[in-house]
Amino acid sequence: MAFSEFRPLDEKSLIEYIKATPVLSNKVGRNYDDLKIKEVGDGNLNFVYIVVGSAGSFVIKQALPYIRCIGESWPMTKERAYFEALALKVHGQLCPEHVPEVYHFDRTMSLIGMRYLEPPHIILRKGLIAGIKYPYLAEHMSTYMSKTLFYTSLLYRTTTEHKRDVAEFCGNVELCRLTEQVIFSDPYKVSQYNHWTSPYLDRDAEAVREDNVLKLEIAELKSKFCERAQALIHGDLHTGSVMVTSDSTQVIDPEFAFYGPMGFDVGAFIGNLFLAYFAQDGHADSFDDRRSYKEWILRMTEGTWNLFHKKFTAFWDKHKDGPGEAYLPAIYNNPELQQIVQEKFMKDLFHDTLGFGAAKMIRRIVGVAHVEDFESIKDDSKRAECERKALDFAKLLLKERRRFQSINEVVSAIPA
Amino acid sequence: MAFSEFRPLDEKSLIEYIKATPVLSNKVGRNYDDLKIKEVGDGNLNFVYIVVGSAGSFVIKQALPYIRCIGESWPMTKERAYFEALALKVHGQLCPEHVPEVYHFDRTMSLIGMRYLEPPHIILRKGLIAGIKYPYLAEHMSTYMSKTLFYTSLLYRTTTEHKRDVAEFCGNVELCRLTEQVIFSDPYKVSQYNHWTSPYLDRDAEAVREDNVLKLEIAELKSKFCERAQALIHGDLHTGSVMVTSDSTQVIDPEFAFYGPMGFDVGAFIGNLFLAYFAQDGHADSFDDRRSYKEWILRMTEGTWNLFHKKFTAFWDKHKDGPGEAYLPAIYNNPELQQIVQEKFMKDLFHDTLGFGAAKMIRRIVGVAHVEDFESIKDDSKRAECERKALDFAKLLLKERRRFQSINEVVSAIPA
Ligand SMILES: Nc1ncnc2c1ncn2[C@@H]1O[C@H](COP(=O)(O)OP(=O)(O)O)[C@@H](O)[C@H]1O
Ligand SMILES: Nc1ncnc2c1ncn2[C@@H]1O[C@H](COP(=O)(O)OP(=O)(O)O)[C@@H](O)[C@H]1O
Ligand SMILES: [Mg+2]
Ligand SMILES: [Mg+2]
Ligand SMILES: [Mg+2]
Ligand SMILES: [Mg+2]
Ligand SMILES: [Mg+2]
Repeated sequence: MAFSEFRPLDEKSLIEYIKATPVLSNKVGRNYDDLKIKEVGDGNLNFVYIVVGSAGSFVIKQALPYIRCIGESWPMTKERAYFEALALKVHGQLCPEHVPEVYHFDRTMSLIGMRYLEPPHIILRKGLIAGIKYPYLAEHMSTYMSKTLFYTSLLYRTTTEHKRDVAEFCGNVELCRLTEQVIFSDPYKVSQYNHWTSPYLDRDAEAVREDNVLKLEIAELKSKFCERAQALIHGDLHTGSVMVTSDSTQVIDPEFAFYGPMGFDVGAFIGNLFLAYFAQDGHADSFDDRRSYKEWILRMTEGTWNLFHKKFTAFWDKHKDGPGEAYLPAIYNNPELQQIVQEKFMKDLFHDTLGFGAAKMIRRIVGVAHVEDFESIKDDSKRAECERKALDFAKLLLKERRRFQSINEVVSAIPA
Repeated sequence: MAFSEFRPLDEKSLIEYIKATPVLSNKVGRNYDDLKIKEVGDGNLNFVYIVVGSAGSFVIKQALPYIRCIGESWPMTKERAYFEALALKVHGQLCPEHVPEVYHFDRTMSLIGMRYLEPPHIILRKGLIAGIKYPYLAEHMSTYMSKTLFYTSLLYRTTTEHKRDVAEFCGNVELCRLTEQVIFSDPYKVSQYNHWTSPYLDRDAEAVREDNVLKLEIAELKSKFCERAQALIHGDLHTGSVMVTSDSTQVIDPEFAFYGPMGFDVGAFIGNLFLAYFAQDGHADSFDDRRSYKEWILRMTEGTWNLFHKKFTAFWDKHKDGPGEAYLPAIYNNPELQQIVQEKFMKDLFHDTLGFGAAKMIRRIVGVAHVEDFESIKDDSKRAECERKALDFAKLLLKERRRFQSINEVVSAIPA
């Protein structure tokens, strides 16, 4: 071990750390003269250093015992790095094509060394704001989600494996509590951390806090989040946790990973695509009215769910005689039954997806952490208009999700 | 520690064990001459010794690394004794009036020393077969279930406590797997362990194995059982896990305890009351047609659920500003909302209860382990007739549970 006890690194001490850590120093050919180190953590929680040498490169992510964007006044266990590294490894094994390789993990230092997703990789959210189309995005994200969720669920695993891993990830409780607070609680009550585009959305924010039906629905979703250990979920799968190029899609930052409801991941991604959609009017200008881009987002959102559905059920079919203990072949091995069972499962998952997706949208408009999609719209009244449309749609989705049978119906319900 | 490594005890070695264990030897005043030791394990899994001396008494329960009623060919971790002792302690703290006190636990020996539930305590199932009315049963069981389930759920506890305890009880996975097999799987497939009153019920058993709707429903319940960590449940709360006198009700044998769905416990108890009901015609004779007793069972079943509902929601009201993190006061502290939230919660719990109760009934008729209620009916054709009625009702309940709004409606649906 390079350092015998935890200390927060900076650009300078990181070099010492690299020198003392063979797997890292080897990556850069033990050549430190031309080493370029840059802290790029634009995220909310952690410090991320890009390390590039002539022989190679990597990224170092370190968790400090508090939330970066708030400061030491909001403590948060640095053990989250352990669960992030573990999830990166598990998901990486299931889907290496869309998860950066982990080179190194140091629990004492709460530090992960992983593949540097070199340019032109950018954060997907930024690409969506810039109006860039990603032809493989739906294909890739549906692959990532179907693989990671199917293969960590009881559809593929035994109860013994499942309970062992559920127990381990129960340790990531502080991050789960943070989600509970910022997604399932704060937006529905007065909280010092909430904010919104004021005064435009004052009444809208208040309406959220006074909507009994919304509160009933969010309670159901919260209880699923807290109680239902369905699969090893990423836990923070918004468009800021995905890095892309035109033909590469990489999922980073699973520090919120635990055994939770699958719909929380699928919903996070789809909900954030809807946010990207509703923000487009705020990005339109005389060169680009964004109409074609809005269309593309909607088609891609449909594609994401539909491909996810297809791949997930294909894995199920493929492994129906496999190790998974949820649906034993001796009971369910009958094509008609297999079909009704899958339809019910996917329908429930779809409704969970819509519910969690809606919850994620709401919290980004009236909760503590907002999204660049909207924040980058400089004009307050224009931003508020976009946000209100998103909020109204999210409220509809949360309340009425069970009446939707397909993603196409959902998309059709979006006001133009 | 009395014995440094595990060994199965018998009446003789148990005396040595007691002598070497102060808390036990003190109980009997260190007087071994008049000590009476009797193995009484009528249960399926373990060995139970009653130890009575002139100065005091206790019961010793030891788990062996296999299932007693099957033999060494069906191994089963003896660590189950650890989880039983833990659950007895947790539930005993919450509801000391209905849980026998644990005097001693020895993990190495998989051995629990607990209060001897002295005569006239008998196993409730035997009392129900004998046609004995227990005036406090509904009152006591509703107290036990509401206390143990409410106070171990997120309605009363923090996420931090919850996840810590969920993780611990994940260790009881072998017992969970046994439940999965015998309740949620075996009855719905051909299994060497299944049996039923043949040839009378051959077609009925086959019909269960060929009923797609039933299989769809049992899958939903199984997934709740495997995935939903709602409360610390007893896990085996049938009428053979309750010992009673006319005014005492004691719940024993929580070796299947883990964090699971509340409805699994409430359903186990109510389902077994229904089994007792359907068996009554087989116990009727010229002295007692059991009509009044059948009425009593039904009223008591209604009372159990209705009192459970009342007490559970009363705990909720009492602690709505308490530590529980499921429904934060800042969001839900509004009488109208509190009511709709509770109604939804209790409706879902009711439907879970009916579903799990029905599953428990079915498995006792066509699965591996049957109940004395029916087994004690000597005449095969008469027994089959009782069992068929129970089975048909259970199938209806499992499939149609969501259309019932109250326990009284359920009871009204029972054929006379
Ligand atoms: N493997 C990587 N390759 C390139 N850039 C990365 C990598 N991991 C993180 N980053 C950059 O660092 C930022 C923050 O990383 P992230 O893991 O999301 O941290 P946080 O947990 O603080 O949100 C990302 O938005 C991205 O720009
Ligand atoms: N504390 C007790 N006091 C009196 N009798 C008991 C006690 N515990 C168990 N018994 C008797 O032993 C039997 C088996 O106990 P139980 O805990 O149900 O074991 P198993 O796990 O094998 O089913 C019970 O049916 C009851 O007759
Ligand atoms: Mg991030
Ligand atoms: Mg972040
Ligand atoms: Mg993060
Ligand atoms: Mg027993
Ligand atoms: Mg037992």
